[in-house]
Amino acid sequence: MRPSLPIRREYAMSDTFTALLERSASVADQLAAHPGRYRVLTGDRPTGPLHLGHLFGSVLERVRLQNAGVQTFVIVADYQVITDRDSIGDVRRFVLDAVLDYLAAGVDPARTTIFTHSAVPALNQLMLPFLSLVTEAELHRNPTVKAELAASGRALSGLLLTYPVHQAADILFCKGNLVPVGKDNAPHVEQTRVIARRFNERYGPVFPVPEVLFTSVPELPGLDGRKMSKSYGNTITLGMTADETAAVIRKARTDTDRHITFDPERRPGVSALLTTAALCSGSTPHALAEEIGDAGAGRLKQVTTEAVNGFLADHRRRRAELAADPGHVLSVLRAGNRTANTIGDATLDEVRTAMGTSY
Amino acid sequence: MRPSLPIRREYAMSDTFTALLERSASVADQLAAHPGRYRVLTGDRPTGPLHLGHLFGSVLERVRLQNAGVQTFVIVADYQVITDRDSIGDVRRFVLDAVLDYLAAGVDPARTTIFTHSAVPALNQLMLPFLSLVTEAELHRNPTVKAELAASGRALSGLLLTYPVHQAADILFCKGNLVPVGKDNAPHVEQTRVIARRFNERYGPVFPVPEVLFTSVPELPGLDGRKMSKSYGNTITLGMTADETAAVIRKARTDTDRHITFDPERRPGVSALLTTAALCSGSTPHALAEEIGDAGAGRLKQVTTEAVNGFLADHRRRRAELAADPGHVLSVLRAGNRTANTIGDATLDEVRTAMGTSY
Repeated sequence: MRPSLPIRREYAMSDTFTALLERSASVADQLAAHPGRYRVLTGDRPTGPLHLGHLFGSVLERVRLQNAGVQTFVIVADYQVITDRDSIGDVRRFVLDAVLDYLAAGVDPARTTIFTHSAVPALNQLMLPFLSLVTEAELHRNPTVKAELAASGRALSGLLLTYPVHQAADILFCKGNLVPVGKDNAPHVEQTRVIARRFNERYGPVFPVPEVLFTSVPELPGLDGRKMSKSYGNTITLGMTADETAAVIRKARTDTDRHITFDPERRPGVSALLTTAALCSGSTPHALAEEIGDAGAGRLKQVTTEAVNGFLADHRRRRAELAADPGHVLSVLRAGNRTANTIGDATLDEVRTAMGTSY
Repeated sequence: MRPSLPIRREYAMSDTFTALLERSASVADQLAAHPGRYRVLTGDRPTGPLHLGHLFGSVLERVRLQNAGVQTFVIVADYQVITDRDSIGDVRRFVLDAVLDYLAAGVDPARTTIFTHSAVPALNQLMLPFLSLVTEAELHRNPTVKAELAASGRALSGLLLTYPVHQAADILFCKGNLVPVGKDNAPHVEQTRVIARRFNERYGPVFPVPEVLFTSVPELPGLDGRKMSKSYGNTITLGMTADETAAVIRKARTDTDRHITFDPERRPGVSALLTTAALCSGSTPHALAEEIGDAGAGRLKQVTTEAVNGFLADHRRRRAELAADPGHVLSVLRAGNRTANTIGDATLDEVRTAMGTSY
């Protein structure tokens, strides 16, 4: 799985970064004072099991927003699985597993709507009017499209090219007015803001122009220091047992220097373990390195395993309890899809009225 | 209004033209023997009132297929209005006017489903999986996209670029297996055939691979010999009165040579009138020219006016009767939209099952 708003190192669109930061700070104040005024959409691509990176990178942030009283929508972006690959894989399993992990992490279906792309036709229909509001050149400029295209090593698919428009439909079908982003991925929301503005100018005020909320989520590397990726085998998935976690950490590549130091450039493996252990134990990589000192990679792995398994113990217990009743997870998703359809149908009706296509 | 499958002078895709012609001939035989096995989708873009060119070019052909026992679907492609322009215009009026003209021309809503894009979310949702099956390069190669882009003089919109995929959704949402085309526009259907094949290969057999049926519909020029276009003011719309028709023909530009001959290259105005009068009276342009002889442009215009008004008299009478009850036209469209939704929902469910996205 990857967050559907991946983190990239680019920024180039209409707003200046400083202005965005200032606006985000003011939004954060408003959010604290009036959380109920905000509706947030975030989501994941169900390309594999959720891992520790997802938990720190987005899932826990969603739970925080939900618990603060923000109206929260989580999309499992099943159609986005096939933007950059031929096979949709075991999408149903990964979708239901994601819902399981959301619930285990504290997402409350009574307050948060969990749904899938494929179940909400009204959302997908918004693609049509929205596609008319953007040029091909704008689609090509989108940093996600550029980065995913480069990463895929394939010809650009129509679905990847139009991904920014589908994302706008995700955010706007429920009139989301706030999108949490890392500092590097604000431009991804810019296309949505442009589409909302152009629609409103052309047809009348239907959509909010969503604000970005910069979040400082810790970025967790894979166990080898590279980007976390299922294909690198460097992830700790949330569904692993404690023993499986210990095994994958034991196999992590470190180095022969028994003196443990935090140095991501020169010691990527050692540093990734330190970062992982620190995030899971509420410590810092430097403090942990000092604590371990000359005890070597074996001790580092032991510390990391204990930290991760300790941190995930509650999540895994709840996950196992929930998994015992597969009907429950399915019924949560179905209820979320029903809610999303009700909201999507209402928005689409407004769009039809605004465009003069009500018959 | 323009047919949503416009006629272009290009041919470049996987099938050779000869093979296509042969297959079409065999399809025509099958069609005659077993019309009920075929389901046809055609349609119009509601950018203005329907005119004589639409009637000869596609509407009467639909009626013929319907009356032969073919299952016929007619889409009023309201979202396609904004592929190449900012304003959607008075779309509701043009949509309802088109339905009025279909009914007046003999389209029978008990046998033919008339519906609009904006009313059928399941059809539009098919865009998502279908977009994953084509590359950007394929979209650019589509002759309609290239021609419409050149004609629009604007930046390529996302909606125009993805038009071939939307057209595939139109044809395949109702499992259309036959698309009537002029000899020049078979490539437009080729993208749909490619998408159907790729979907079936990847996810299992859901869609028919539609055949093309070459039709020899007469091509009617505008009154000035140029392409018929509302913006040229060279059309006779089906909703005009007999007097309005006489006026527009009276204003048509001819030349000073009183001897009437059929010569489209050198005498475009005179020849366009001859073609129009011949089509409407079941004669030929040459025969009519001979008949008029030296009687000049005045006589030609008189002959043309009589031919057109005679030909359209029944259509206009039925049109006026139907227009007297606007609720009827609306109820026909609503019933068509309901039927299209029932069919679209069933197809989408099959697509979800095939893709593994049923929850």
